[in-house]
Amino acid sequence: MKYGFGVDLGGTTAKIAYFDREGTLLHKWEIPTNTGNGGAAILPDIAASVQAFIQDNRIDRSQLLGIGIGVPGAVDDAGVVYRCDNIGWGTVAVKDTLSGLTGLPVAVGNDANVAALGESWMGGAKEFRSMVMVTLGTGVGGGVVIDGQLLVGAGGGAGEIGHMILNRQETERCSCGRYGCVEQYCSATGIVRMARRMLEASDTPSCLRETEKLTAKAVFDGAKAGDRLASAVAEQFFADMGTFLANVCCVIAPEAILLGGGVSKAGDFLLEGVRQAFGRFAYHAHRETRFVVATLGNDAGAYGAFKLILG
Amino acid sequence: MKYGFGVDLGGTTAKIAYFDREGTLLHKWEIPTNTGNGGAAILPDIAASVQAFIQDNRIDRSQLLGIGIGVPGAVDDAGVVYRCDNIGWGTVAVKDTLSGLTGLPVAVGNDANVAALGESWMGGAKEFRSMVMVTLGTGVGGGVVIDGQLLVGAGGGAGEIGHMILNRQETERCSCGRYGCVEQYCSATGIVRMARRMLEASDTPSCLRETEKLTAKAVFDGAKAGDRLASAVAEQFFADMGTFLANVCCVIAPEAILLGGGVSKAGDFLLEGVRQAFGRFAYHAHRETRFVVATLGNDAGAYGAFKLILG
Repeated sequence: MKYGFGVDLGGTTAKIAYFDREGTLLHKWEIPTNTGNGGAAILPDIAASVQAFIQDNRIDRSQLLGIGIGVPGAVDDAGVVYRCDNIGWGTVAVKDTLSGLTGLPVAVGNDANVAALGESWMGGAKEFRSMVMVTLGTGVGGGVVIDGQLLVGAGGGAGEIGHMILNRQETERCSCGRYGCVEQYCSATGIVRMARRMLEASDTPSCLRETEKLTAKAVFDGAKAGDRLASAVAEQFFADMGTFLANVCCVIAPEAILLGGGVSKAGDFLLEGVRQAFGRFAYHAHRETRFVVATLGNDAGAYGAFKLILG
Repeated sequence: MKYGFGVDLGGTTAKIAYFDREGTLLHKWEIPTNTGNGGAAILPDIAASVQAFIQDNRIDRSQLLGIGIGVPGAVDDAGVVYRCDNIGWGTVAVKDTLSGLTGLPVAVGNDANVAALGESWMGGAKEFRSMVMVTLGTGVGGGVVIDGQLLVGAGGGAGEIGHMILNRQETERCSCGRYGCVEQYCSATGIVRMARRMLEASDTPSCLRETEKLTAKAVFDGAKAGDRLASAVAEQFFADMGTFLANVCCVIAPEAILLGGGVSKAGDFLLEGVRQAFGRFAYHAHRETRFVVATLGNDAGAYGAFKLILG
């Protein structure tokens, strides 16, 4: 049996996992991400941690397939990143550097893409050949897998579905500088923004007026409990999700759409609402698209990163 | 040298072309499409025409790679179509039937997809590994090529970019039964519809009020000549194109976008207008996307159909 490592590099920690080639996660641990000094210590720290694991466990290096790593930024074909703001990186030749430090083959991918690959390979979309993962968190991330392979796109730009324009008439600016992106409506932050707008635009009594902290969870809980205003916010969210996912399907027609990220913890309520809205907005050829939820949680990135090595 | 056939099956004629494996079009001809009797004669007619060509030219059958055919409908993995309204077909096993009739290997694709593959292989997008073709005609068709391969999608549903929703508030219905599709704004018919709306909404004098027949060409000619209302219609068209193409890029980030179809005859004026609007609406990671125009004209489908055989 052959083995390898999957690394999910985040702003706070790097999650490292050891897999066999069948995709069994055998061991996992975390190390802090040292973003000081332009993130210069990040790859040496990861290399040292992996080397120590190999040595401590007396692993035969000839059995090792390599290290896959997901990084928070766009990656080119040569495994080079040009900017990862939240870990301090400018241009870093991740593949060559990490390979040089460990003597192992290295494959590099974008973190959102790699999480999609993980869910496609061993998680919620395992039974589908093609899928789009939608990560609903502070922002809206995405990843596209076709025939089991990650779609990277020119300049690593595929799967940026959170920046599809949903409403050209929007007057508030998205973090990207444009107006009306999906992220402004469907992220946790976006849901709260929409709820605030609706609260300000009416005097309808609502449980949302009394919550200490207005969150996406409070909105969904309110809607589940039948609160009228919360339900209206949720309906708008579902319609926005349904529309933009219908548009994603027009481009690539995936077999399945997988929902992940913090917002997706709203579970069946979310899945059912999105599925129904999608049914209203989808082009007829795409109505059979399946909806599933992420199952690997925080490990998705490590699974997908290791899968990069297997090809 | 090996050879083969590419067939572009349309509602009026089937265009048949004979290629060498390098993609040189050696000979081409057309036969009428007999849509009577549920289109039962269509494949036998094509087979007979190909067989006659082989015999008349004393072609060694061992040198033949096969026949690729593009059909006006969705095609499944087994080369079966379930509905091609404009040629009278219900369920037809195109691959097996045509292969049985000719004794040659057969590959089948959707006509819009296959035209994209042709332009990608030997036409306007030859130098790019990935591209999206946008066909602006009576409707808006599309095709996606990634790493030189056609993206077919679940149920053959990829590339239906004419049915991405651009404006959920639209009150007129699209031919697909939904509201606000790209096709309602960016097709030749859509451009005329928008022009009519603007003409009715104002009293601004315009050359468009005097044209005998209001067409997309009249709108672009008017805009080029500086007519204010025609320019406003063209500006709206460019903004719609820019927005929806920016959204396509968020999903797959192609290296290039190729414009084809009747409307694309507006040439540089169209290309420049779309490119500028795209620059305004594109996500920063996609601003380098290249814009090109189709070069194979009516032969694109035959080129792409033959390419299906090469894989």
